[in-house]
Amino acid sequence: MAVLISVDIGGTSIRATSYPLIGQEPVRHFKTSTTSPGETVYDRVCQSIRQVLPPGTEIKAIGVATAGPLDPRSGFIFDAPNIPGWKDFPLGERLRHEFNVPVVVENDANMAAFGEWKFGAGVGLHDLLYLTISTGIGAGVISSDLLIRGYRGLGAELGHVTLIPDGPLCSCGKRGHLEAISSGPAIVSYYLQLLKEKGQPTGPANVHFSTREVALAAQSGDPLALQAFQHAGSHLGLALAGFIHIFNPAMIVLGGGVSQSGPLLTDPMMERMRAEVMEPIYLKDLQILPSKLGDDAGLMGVLAFTRQSLD
Amino acid sequence: MAVLISVDIGGTSIRATSYPLIGQEPVRHFKTSTTSPGETVYDRVCQSIRQVLPPGTEIKAIGVATAGPLDPRSGFIFDAPNIPGWKDFPLGERLRHEFNVPVVVENDANMAAFGEWKFGAGVGLHDLLYLTISTGIGAGVISSDLLIRGYRGLGAELGHVTLIPDGPLCSCGKRGHLEAISSGPAIVSYYLQLLKEKGQPTGPANVHFSTREVALAAQSGDPLALQAFQHAGSHLGLALAGFIHIFNPAMIVLGGGVSQSGPLLTDPMMERMRAEVMEPIYLKDLQILPSKLGDDAGLMGVLAFTRQSLD
Repeated sequence: MAVLISVDIGGTSIRATSYPLIGQEPVRHFKTSTTSPGETVYDRVCQSIRQVLPPGTEIKAIGVATAGPLDPRSGFIFDAPNIPGWKDFPLGERLRHEFNVPVVVENDANMAAFGEWKFGAGVGLHDLLYLTISTGIGAGVISSDLLIRGYRGLGAELGHVTLIPDGPLCSCGKRGHLEAISSGPAIVSYYLQLLKEKGQPTGPANVHFSTREVALAAQSGDPLALQAFQHAGSHLGLALAGFIHIFNPAMIVLGGGVSQSGPLLTDPMMERMRAEVMEPIYLKDLQILPSKLGDDAGLMGVLAFTRQSLD
Repeated sequence: MAVLISVDIGGTSIRATSYPLIGQEPVRHFKTSTTSPGETVYDRVCQSIRQVLPPGTEIKAIGVATAGPLDPRSGFIFDAPNIPGWKDFPLGERLRHEFNVPVVVENDANMAAFGEWKFGAGVGLHDLLYLTISTGIGAGVISSDLLIRGYRGLGAELGHVTLIPDGPLCSCGKRGHLEAISSGPAIVSYYLQLLKEKGQPTGPANVHFSTREVALAAQSGDPLALQAFQHAGSHLGLALAGFIHIFNPAMIVLGGGVSQSGPLLTDPMMERMRAEVMEPIYLKDLQILPSKLGDDAGLMGVLAFTRQSLD
């Protein structure tokens, strides 16, 4: 018996699942923290793969969804800021040598988009845009049944388009990107900035609000917290209008923790999006839905993508 | 003998070419103005088609490249602001009834991109981004050998992404789009605004500068004209950085009259683009070239696209 193994590597946790060669019912699942003292992340990835390999089975192929930018042709990680030591790291090559099986390494948000398209919210559609809004803003796009990857597979970084020239600093080092305005940390930063502007206490310098806390404050009527979500949601809607003009999707799927803030984020998003789309025809029949697969989107996406690449 | 006929319909002129079933050598070519008193544009399109049909030949198929938004599945024009009477106009259906042959109707910028990819600057590449900068800014994208069209074929309107929220009014009615900042008319408007701000004469109210005149002024050292091109080029570069993050193209092809302004536009464009791209790997081996096919890109693109759709 043989299994396919999917691994999703994030800044916080590594998740691995073994699947049968046909079907999506997990055989074994394992989740662990990405880092642990005295161990490399790579070692922890290998352990996770072995954890989900049932005795007496062999591995047919390994698919890895991880943060980029990375080169999917070779599985080379150029720079994964959230993963210690993964700068110019040949992940694909290392895993191929370690396990002696085909290895697919792909951008995690692209794989989540692929998962939602193959098994989740977008089954049967041809044109789908997926955005995950959490610590960062990741994205993946399916256009005419094809995943947008680009020349080196660096594509569909929709979180890194400029909405406000010379705006807030982005995690990537540039300014005014969608991610720097509408991600979780961006909402918290904007809220703190509003508190300061109004001369309100921002708490001890070493205590950081979470996005969830700002959301709870907004839900209990804090006008500045509401304004922070309004700002993030409205700019997200402005960005979506541009993406709609670019991709004319049939569906937009929203994943990630921040997208679960509900109407706080999506009401201003929808309002701005509708106001900024240039022709009503773009919005006709456009579905905007939450992720159906949640945390499993990346694992299931890379499963489908690995199968496709073995064909 | 049979021919394929390509028609490119713009706000100023209609161009038609007949081609053999194999090869790209034109059989006959005809160009005329889009409008003429007492005639509809549709009549002029039909006349142009008949003009390029040699005696004794029959039409195998007709491909039309025209301004959108339009539905390429049916050839229905939703709204072509530059073409009188073409609002909710069933161009594809009318031509099919008129000539009783297969008719392909596609967005002109998408077809120009397709032409540059099949016969022009981007032959042999898989990931190409085409921008035409003239009265408007049109675009087309090839990703993994596939033309980005979207659910209803309304895709790749890269001229209509917001660069400056609440910025200058765009031809589409929204604000701050790339087209409203870096197109020819946008450069002229910005120049006039600078002249007014400096209290300099803007000429008689009923005389309009052309982009070419502003370019000549810049070339002869007019600092405000230089600033107008700097502004347009720099924002174009900012937009390109975003498109590069989205599509990770191997090549960007620049067409349209304004792109022929040369370094006036492309120097600030390149400088800003390089400054705004988040990882150098996106720029490695990226080629940025002028259109090779020029005015013929759309005609040749729709030829190739029509052939593909007949297969």
